[in-house]
Amino acid sequence: MKIVTFGEVMLRLSPPGVERFAQTDTLHMHFGGTEANVAVSLAQFGLQAAHVTRFPDHALGRAATGYLRKYAVSTEHIRYGDGRLGLYFLETGAGSRASQIIYDRVDSAFARIRPEEIDWETVLQGASWFHWTGITPALSQGAADCLLAGIQTANRLGVPVSTDIVYRSNLWQYGRKPQDIMPALTEGCTLVLGSKTLFSDLYGVVGSTFQESGRALMKHFPNVRYITDTKRRSVSASHNQLSAKLFDGEAVYKSRIYDINPITDRIGTGDAYMAGLIYGLLTFNDLQRAVEFGAAASALKHTIPGDVNLATVAEVDTLANGDSSGKLKR
Amino acid sequence: MKIVTFGEVMLRLSPPGVERFAQTDTLHMHFGGTEANVAVSLAQFGLQAAHVTRFPDHALGRAATGYLRKYAVSTEHIRYGDGRLGLYFLETGAGSRASQIIYDRVDSAFARIRPEEIDWETVLQGASWFHWTGITPALSQGAADCLLAGIQTANRLGVPVSTDIVYRSNLWQYGRKPQDIMPALTEGCTLVLGSKTLFSDLYGVVGSTFQESGRALMKHFPNVRYITDTKRRSVSASHNQLSAKLFDGEAVYKSRIYDINPITDRIGTGDAYMAGLIYGLLTFNDLQRAVEFGAAASALKHTIPGDVNLATVAEVDTLANGDSSGKLKR
Amino acid sequence: MKIVTFGEVMLRLSPPGVERFAQTDTLHMHFGGTEANVAVSLAQFGLQAAHVTRFPDHALGRAATGYLRKYAVSTEHIRYGDGRLGLYFLETGAGSRASQIIYDRVDSAFARIRPEEIDWETVLQGASWFHWTGITPALSQGAADCLLAGIQTANRLGVPVSTDIVYRSNLWQYGRKPQDIMPALTEGCTLVLGSKTLFSDLYGVVGSTFQESGRALMKHFPNVRYITDTKRRSVSASHNQLSAKLFDGEAVYKSRIYDINPITDRIGTGDAYMAGLIYGLLTFNDLQRAVEFGAAASALKHTIPGDVNLATVAEVDTLANGDSSGKLKR
Amino acid sequence: MKIVTFGEVMLRLSPPGVERFAQTDTLHMHFGGTEANVAVSLAQFGLQAAHVTRFPDHALGRAATGYLRKYAVSTEHIRYGDGRLGLYFLETGAGSRASQIIYDRVDSAFARIRPEEIDWETVLQGASWFHWTGITPALSQGAADCLLAGIQTANRLGVPVSTDIVYRSNLWQYGRKPQDIMPALTEGCTLVLGSKTLFSDLYGVVGSTFQESGRALMKHFPNVRYITDTKRRSVSASHNQLSAKLFDGEAVYKSRIYDINPITDRIGTGDAYMAGLIYGLLTFNDLQRAVEFGAAASALKHTIPGDVNLATVAEVDTLANGDSSGKLKR
Amino acid sequence: MKIVTFGEVMLRLSPPGVERFAQTDTLHMHFGGTEANVAVSLAQFGLQAAHVTRFPDHALGRAATGYLRKYAVSTEHIRYGDGRLGLYFLETGAGSRASQIIYDRVDSAFARIRPEEIDWETVLQGASWFHWTGITPALSQGAADCLLAGIQTANRLGVPVSTDIVYRSNLWQYGRKPQDIMPALTEGCTLVLGSKTLFSDLYGVVGSTFQESGRALMKHFPNVRYITDTKRRSVSASHNQLSAKLFDGEAVYKSRIYDINPITDRIGTGDAYMAGLIYGLLTFNDLQRAVEFGAAASALKHTIPGDVNLATVAEVDTLANGDSSGKLKR
Amino acid sequence: MKIVTFGEVMLRLSPPGVERFAQTDTLHMHFGGTEANVAVSLAQFGLQAAHVTRFPDHALGRAATGYLRKYAVSTEHIRYGDGRLGLYFLETGAGSRASQIIYDRVDSAFARIRPEEIDWETVLQGASWFHWTGITPALSQGAADCLLAGIQTANRLGVPVSTDIVYRSNLWQYGRKPQDIMPALTEGCTLVLGSKTLFSDLYGVVGSTFQESGRALMKHFPNVRYITDTKRRSVSASHNQLSAKLFDGEAVYKSRIYDINPITDRIGTGDAYMAGLIYGLLTFNDLQRAVEFGAAASALKHTIPGDVNLATVAEVDTLANGDSSGKLKR
Repeated sequence: MKIVTFGEVMLRLSPPGVERFAQTDTLHMHFGGTEANVAVSLAQFGLQAAHVTRFPDHALGRAATGYLRKYAVSTEHIRYGDGRLGLYFLETGAGSRASQIIYDRVDSAFARIRPEEIDWETVLQGASWFHWTGITPALSQGAADCLLAGIQTANRLGVPVSTDIVYRSNLWQYGRKPQDIMPALTEGCTLVLGSKTLFSDLYGVVGSTFQESGRALMKHFPNVRYITDTKRRSVSASHNQLSAKLFDGEAVYKSRIYDINPITDRIGTGDAYMAGLIYGLLTFNDLQRAVEFGAAASALKHTIPGDVNLATVAEVDTLANGDSSGKLKR
Repeated sequence: MKIVTFGEVMLRLSPPGVERFAQTDTLHMHFGGTEANVAVSLAQFGLQAAHVTRFPDHALGRAATGYLRKYAVSTEHIRYGDGRLGLYFLETGAGSRASQIIYDRVDSAFARIRPEEIDWETVLQGASWFHWTGITPALSQGAADCLLAGIQTANRLGVPVSTDIVYRSNLWQYGRKPQDIMPALTEGCTLVLGSKTLFSDLYGVVGSTFQESGRALMKHFPNVRYITDTKRRSVSASHNQLSAKLFDGEAVYKSRIYDINPITDRIGTGDAYMAGLIYGLLTFNDLQRAVEFGAAASALKHTIPGDVNLATVAEVDTLANGDSSGKLKR
Repeated sequence: MKIVTFGEVMLRLSPPGVERFAQTDTLHMHFGGTEANVAVSLAQFGLQAAHVTRFPDHALGRAATGYLRKYAVSTEHIRYGDGRLGLYFLETGAGSRASQIIYDRVDSAFARIRPEEIDWETVLQGASWFHWTGITPALSQGAADCLLAGIQTANRLGVPVSTDIVYRSNLWQYGRKPQDIMPALTEGCTLVLGSKTLFSDLYGVVGSTFQESGRALMKHFPNVRYITDTKRRSVSASHNQLSAKLFDGEAVYKSRIYDINPITDRIGTGDAYMAGLIYGLLTFNDLQRAVEFGAAASALKHTIPGDVNLATVAEVDTLANGDSSGKLKR
Repeated sequence: MKIVTFGEVMLRLSPPGVERFAQTDTLHMHFGGTEANVAVSLAQFGLQAAHVTRFPDHALGRAATGYLRKYAVSTEHIRYGDGRLGLYFLETGAGSRASQIIYDRVDSAFARIRPEEIDWETVLQGASWFHWTGITPALSQGAADCLLAGIQTANRLGVPVSTDIVYRSNLWQYGRKPQDIMPALTEGCTLVLGSKTLFSDLYGVVGSTFQESGRALMKHFPNVRYITDTKRRSVSASHNQLSAKLFDGEAVYKSRIYDINPITDRIGTGDAYMAGLIYGLLTFNDLQRAVEFGAAASALKHTIPGDVNLATVAEVDTLANGDSSGKLKR
Repeated sequence: MKIVTFGEVMLRLSPPGVERFAQTDTLHMHFGGTEANVAVSLAQFGLQAAHVTRFPDHALGRAATGYLRKYAVSTEHIRYGDGRLGLYFLETGAGSRASQIIYDRVDSAFARIRPEEIDWETVLQGASWFHWTGITPALSQGAADCLLAGIQTANRLGVPVSTDIVYRSNLWQYGRKPQDIMPALTEGCTLVLGSKTLFSDLYGVVGSTFQESGRALMKHFPNVRYITDTKRRSVSASHNQLSAKLFDGEAVYKSRIYDINPITDRIGTGDAYMAGLIYGLLTFNDLQRAVEFGAAASALKHTIPGDVNLATVAEVDTLANGDSSGKLKR
Repeated sequence: MKIVTFGEVMLRLSPPGVERFAQTDTLHMHFGGTEANVAVSLAQFGLQAAHVTRFPDHALGRAATGYLRKYAVSTEHIRYGDGRLGLYFLETGAGSRASQIIYDRVDSAFARIRPEEIDWETVLQGASWFHWTGITPALSQGAADCLLAGIQTANRLGVPVSTDIVYRSNLWQYGRKPQDIMPALTEGCTLVLGSKTLFSDLYGVVGSTFQESGRALMKHFPNVRYITDTKRRSVSASHNQLSAKLFDGEAVYKSRIYDINPITDRIGTGDAYMAGLIYGLLTFNDLQRAVEFGAAASALKHTIPGDVNLATVAEVDTLANGDSSGKLKR
């Protein structure tokens, strides 16, 4: 089974441990992007995953490619060209001190992508799934157009499409509003991760509960078969509680609540959920098990440094089956 | 607004993470001293802060100066001369294992200070506050004399004076007892941080409660307008609970109790409180808000490596206003 | 008082912090082995400790010796020869992610030991205690034979013998079963650490409680005077609860339950208990105090990186006496 | 004596040692920019130095300020606003492998500077020298305009102006050519660092030797009193030979040839020369000594990690006086 | 063009910088093996490269795969099974102190390979080159057999075969001598790297010069078209001189002598030569240029940490064309 | 054979690589002292070595002991008491930038030693050699007195005594001049390392050449049988040339000149010579070989980080026999 993801990959630079930007003289490198994070996670689960993006044609762009390849993601459809490597600087917090991100991704090589650079027909040939998020169309008209072409191709080829419709207000700087762009993209989706607030803001779809709002979305976008969302209680930067739910138009499947303490790295934990859920939907014939697998995957990601979830199926299964003892394995 | 602080700054050397002295071959460097820590914190809050001290005239003394300057503290009144750089070695504990300090500060360049080296008239010109602690007069006669001159000058210039009357029994090696020295120094103070036990031991001032003891101190030292203290419950080296209270002769203002878990670095958390309180007194017209700001500043310091609090006003305000969720800021 | 221990010492290689094997490019070195860990701990408690083992005759074997010597263990009876240095790779987990060990110890220099290489008469001269574990006879016939000679010599010289009868199913690859080998070794012991399940599996000794099973073991092996065991509740990889009990044929002495959070390094915590208990039995005339000292030693080990417990008697006493506050010591 | 410099400061990110970008997961941070490097070096020489620039108003912009302040450069005239922090990635070579830089400085906060943001009258009050380079006008029209205002103010106030007319073809992206911009800027200068090729390309000033070309430039720009240049023979990335010469319209003063092996960090060595020369011109009444001091400063910079020269006057003097023995100083 | 290589890949563990084993507590990880090093180098040159090996089926085996994949080597034909990951410990010397290797590769997963595990027909389909070395048949009968099958398949498919017939006396522990095994393997080769001493020792082929000995080898093994060798003068561990020569049965093509100082990492420099030569033979129609490219590639590898050459074609070309200045590239 | 050495051991703190004090936030730890360095080196050569010193009775003093013990030096005669741990801060230079040391050793636990603390009779029982240097009597009257007692005991027991009469003008702060103290100490020596300038300054012994001056010293101190000295040409901080000579009253034995490039760590290279010479005198019956062994040992030390020489006899022999090729040993 091959999963294709599409989106920007950034170089992440973070001080060691919980040092502040002002006091460090060293930065640790990771690479990540919400869609690529999903690809890496699925590759660790043993599926084939290919990420589509565009990097600058220099040593750091090549290093980004190497990072994805190291974690078994196919990079054959990556394009290289002008523009910068998107960056973000992460200061990790602890306890009552929040983590902070300074984004530096404007005018990246990915934002400069043009639809004709990706031959979606080839890319999606034989794929079992296509995943995108609301970050991509927020970056540039080119990225939005290229994405739309991808979704339409996936629809034509019968490849299921998932999305996390995440909205970031400090993006969307290229003159369009999400309300202009997101509906056409969401229309082609099978699985949508989002909240009822977002459903209302982006699509004008309202409902007083997750279930009602989901039902309304499914009416609005008849291709949509699954609605999902996660719920996080932030006790502190080091201690969160997390659960997930999945709605298939009929029933709501809820995961256990995972108590996560301590948190090593909170970045990419939503992507880890999405990857776990996709894995579950593709592999299990059991929606309850799928949502539980996704939530457990997300919980485990909190213990792993970097943006990507390096947990294995066996590890996720152990936790999904209720063993959170963390007992030493010899 | 300019705040002036006076005292020794030491080089702190600590093994990485929670390694023991016996097992490390690397030491991380920080610089700190209880009064300088207050200056750095106030500089992060956006006030002007100048620290007065005396360093050895060599590369490490210059590096110490650079450290203060990096964090926006004015170093123009620092003097250089003979003597060593004071040091302390810190082994950081965890859980039920306590942190340990080995001091190596005897005969430092600061301890060799002579009163005539500091022209207090110039230093305190235009200052809004002067801060000292009980460490300084414990180091040497010269330091005590120089401090007394500073306090007297501040009084003459109408600059408010604060003190943390901390008592360390392993200091005071130069032949005088704190009871001989501290009263004359405390007399010129507006704000005193201390416990009723210390009030009794140092000044013979007794009272059965914080309030009564504070009232007695105010009677004893008519310049004193505020008494303050913090209260810490040490669940473990990684988990503390902290609160603060402030007495203005009439009412006692108590902060929330902050649950701090995990603790990254406990050193300088008292100084962070003092800096927060001074900031509050200088900036807010609200004693409750001032003590809450101080306590929140102290709580945040526990998450920051090193002796000095690098939290901003916005961060302290968030916590002081009750948001301890540590939610990621993008 | 001199304690002698016998067993393999491995080089442990672990990624920094909680990094996964797949993402690290650096490994931290420690050395450890269950019996040597006991020796190091006892040496920190101020007793004389000598470890007997066999290393490859190359720079890493010499480095292993240096590691033991650094921590005050006598290495004069160590032998050098052919074979590899045993290794293990440790990935440290956190929260719900378990730590993982990959052993790489097959055909080590220690496994190739021949009984005639150790002159037990000389080694045990003047010793107050001899300690071994169930790992040693599981490695090779030579190790088992050499150990038996050691136990018999100890018995002849009147040196008390202790054992932790730990059973690892992935060892015992040389053609013998533990049931063939362990009884003769256990026969010469004074103190046995093990569970009733193990007593039943290894010796066919049954009993429905710790006490009954212990009593049965004492009947089966009349030299045995003390049975002990620890009990661990694994809340997560970062949070455990630990207690211990000791049975002298009459009464069961139980330690306090220690709540351990966070855990820095779980490896060697059982050995730290054994060392603490041996210290207690040799030093205190008080079984309750001995088991409490052992349990407190084990609890403290969880805060110390590496396999060996570097806590001092004073530190263990503080905790054993109920002070788990971890208050900064200046 | 106060020296003012003006230009962009970038965050430099480089792998440890001589690792390649493709293999590192850690980047070391330094800050630097050709003009700020001059300021830092002069501050180490004990002069007052103030750098004028514009940073983004976030934690990394503040960290850049802290870096300059740490090294005793006045940052009071720095402005904060929109735009990114300029970056460059440096891979350090060795032997026959060249070092490589990937610049990522487009649209920085500095490039967005507007002339009205700097009050040159205030900034240059009491200054003894003003320094700029050909990088600044290459970045944006705003930077060029702001610089011109600075030079004109310096001229009006009688402050000598120096420039390094370095030309980088990959800059100058804002629609103007250096030939349009540089002449008006150079006109106000006292000291010009450049080659005869550059004099010809930028100003159409020709001469067949350094001396002739210099004389022609002085004719073209009557304010110019000194022409200088360095000469580097690159044996390998680890071994260079360096010398400098200075022309005052009459004589050419040549430095010794410095054999530099090994090279720790080649970045900023030209700026170190410029700082040394300025120091020499301001401090010595001896052009030969000034050019020798500059060349020795540059040679020493090759041994110091980072962009800035942290050598002291005493160290430079030792080398300038011919002692290159590097003998241990106790 | 696709190149296939076959052989063991080991985890290399080395202290930082030039620390000795006895003094380090950290080891840096690289992966390498003489044949895989060739594959990585060719992949950096832009060719397709696939490495065939067998790893243990655990996290470290997977990490080794990730390392190769990161550097663009295809890992699709790698097999996983029982056995250890081969290791070697490298202590890097300097000046007159030699580097030292402690091998720990006995009984690795690769040594346990069985010929039927590799489907050479599939692996070599469409390949342009197959490369092996004398290390592989020295490890085990299974490795030798598997290799022979590979060579025979390559011959059948018309894929050119190269070998470096390196002989290590401390290998060959499985009961066969190189003289028994090497001739049949060498028979199928097109390109042979070796010295006349080895030709005589392994095949009984003698000749008094490189040329004569090469001619004799070509007679002995009629498939062989090229003989090559490198020559190294070791001035010190930090300074070597290197050259190469290639014989095609008619003329000897000699490279320039490369003066290499300082040396960052000498490991894998022979493999870098082989990769450069193969690239040259496959890409240039010019034997002189091919041997020069190989020698320059080898020279550059000395500046790169780790076993594998990460130089690009452009970098090698620069040096091969005579520019060893190492001038900074912006 | 057992060698006894006596003197202070300091904690050395140095920035990584060639960073300056002003720019580092990490310090690497080593321990060293001129006499202890000799002991460690001799222990690496396989002799028994015991170092006598006095440490503060805290965790860092114990860590210093552990360091010596790790390198096989007997620490049984070390005493613990009041006073500080002596420190020195080392900034390592490169090329024309000199290394710099900031000493911080005043009033150390060693300087507070009292003669009665060391029972020389016991310490020197069975010893084959006793070594001291001119640093020890320069530290305090107590150290000088204790040393004198040691030398006298050695003389009484017939143990040969060696000294390096090194003179440091910034020591000798306790009121005595070296001319008062050194003669009585030197009188008991067999082997003296020093220059003719020192012989003249300290003892008033003059001679126009090494040989004549040596002969005069032997006349002055009839116990002296050997005079030795090293000669260093400092090309740069990274490149030195070193040779040694030994005079036995009849002939002068000169070593080869060792060209040392690059230098990793110059500290302790004189002590490495002394250890090598002592080893040679004790082991070889050949003065030429002894001086060559000493010089080669010193040359090798330049490649080893830290104060102590960790070279083996085999390594020194290789170099002493003329092989400086540094060829990789597998």
